[in-house]
Amino acid sequence: MPLKKNHKTGKLISFEGSEGSGKSTQIALLAAHIQKSGLDVVSTREPGGTEIGEQVRNIIVHNSKGDEMCAETELLLFAAARAQLVREVIAPALMRGAIVLSDRFLDSSTVYQGIGRSLGAGPVNEINRFAVGNVMPDITIVIDVPTEVSLARLKQRASDLPDRMERENIDFYNKVRDGYLVLAKSMSDRFVVVDGTKSQDAIAKEIWNAVSARLK
Amino acid sequence: MPLKKNHKTGKLISFEGSEGSGKSTQIALLAAHIQKSGLDVVSTREPGGTEIGEQVRNIIVHNSKGDEMCAETELLLFAAARAQLVREVIAPALMRGAIVLSDRFLDSSTVYQGIGRSLGAGPVNEINRFAVGNVMPDITIVIDVPTEVSLARLKQRASDLPDRMERENIDFYNKVRDGYLVLAKSMSDRFVVVDGTKSQDAIAKEIWNAVSARLK
Repeated sequence: MPLKKNHKTGKLISFEGSEGSGKSTQIALLAAHIQKSGLDVVSTREPGGTEIGEQVRNIIVHNSKGDEMCAETELLLFAAARAQLVREVIAPALMRGAIVLSDRFLDSSTVYQGIGRSLGAGPVNEINRFAVGNVMPDITIVIDVPTEVSLARLKQRASDLPDRMERENIDFYNKVRDGYLVLAKSMSDRFVVVDGTKSQDAIAKEIWNAVSARLK
Repeated sequence: MPLKKNHKTGKLISFEGSEGSGKSTQIALLAAHIQKSGLDVVSTREPGGTEIGEQVRNIIVHNSKGDEMCAETELLLFAAARAQLVREVIAPALMRGAIVLSDRFLDSSTVYQGIGRSLGAGPVNEINRFAVGNVMPDITIVIDVPTEVSLARLKQRASDLPDRMERENIDFYNKVRDGYLVLAKSMSDRFVVVDGTKSQDAIAKEIWNAVSARLK
């Protein structure tokens, strides 16, 4: 499906960071805040957010023998879910002027598959570009948390069985964390890094300030 | 997973053509023939051939609301299944010297998604290259059948519910058929086109002659 050039009356805000960084909590708080302002807000997540994308998520997350999935397969599955999400959900929402909040977007592939799994920036960027077409985030919030803190939080989530991503080792998560920080530095216009060890309210306030300043 | 440079002591033979062209029958006949010659033969299919690939196949083939899957998503899902198949099945089999027969391989994406769905050769080739690494078919057999014949055959398969691909229209299948013929002409070293309206035995003989001549 060709994406229309002038779809962007709305805004796309992506949330990035390690698992356990508090993205979903902050998305819920920001969504409520935006809604109170009377704006149309759509929250979604990656991989997933569409029927097809959730089926893809299922393959990635619950793949019972985690070691068997190649990094290349993983990247392509994330990209497939992303391509569907962009065309089925995000682009139509932006067309009608909504603010779209996405729990992860293309930067997750740049960092997790490109840096974490060492696939390299070249192929990851190419595949990302193909998947998203011309739909890029207007703002990307990175919630930065030291690896030890995010892993400790994950262990406390009693309901979460360790899945493929969460079984990765500390080195991998350190690479991911550093990857986000490097990316944010290189594209400081789009990225906002917030300290995820602060209180929920403090983080929410920081995000709201950054977003409302940039949406003006 | 990096693919070793010197894996190719075996040979990869891919089978291409529209649905209903008789690929799976001919693969079974060729596999039996090769096995009789005392060689190690592995038959596989795309999308699928691995646990993860079959899960991906399931999403593609049985996607209940076929119109919702974007062409971009489709291409990336095929590529994901292919990347896994290459690294988990094909490359290891080639390493030990086996003859691998694959029901579809990267040319299916070139033709179905690149030409049939008009995604264009550029992105399809890039994504194909990423998915297969350095594993290319040594021989590609295209079983060529007029669209009316393959569609009539599909309708006779009582057990096959119309799935996403098979609900496509005649124009689409004509583009696919022509696409294979153009591709075969442009890479005549690798491609062998056989007339799929001949008898099973005649086709099997033609394929065996072409394969045995090229494997020498």
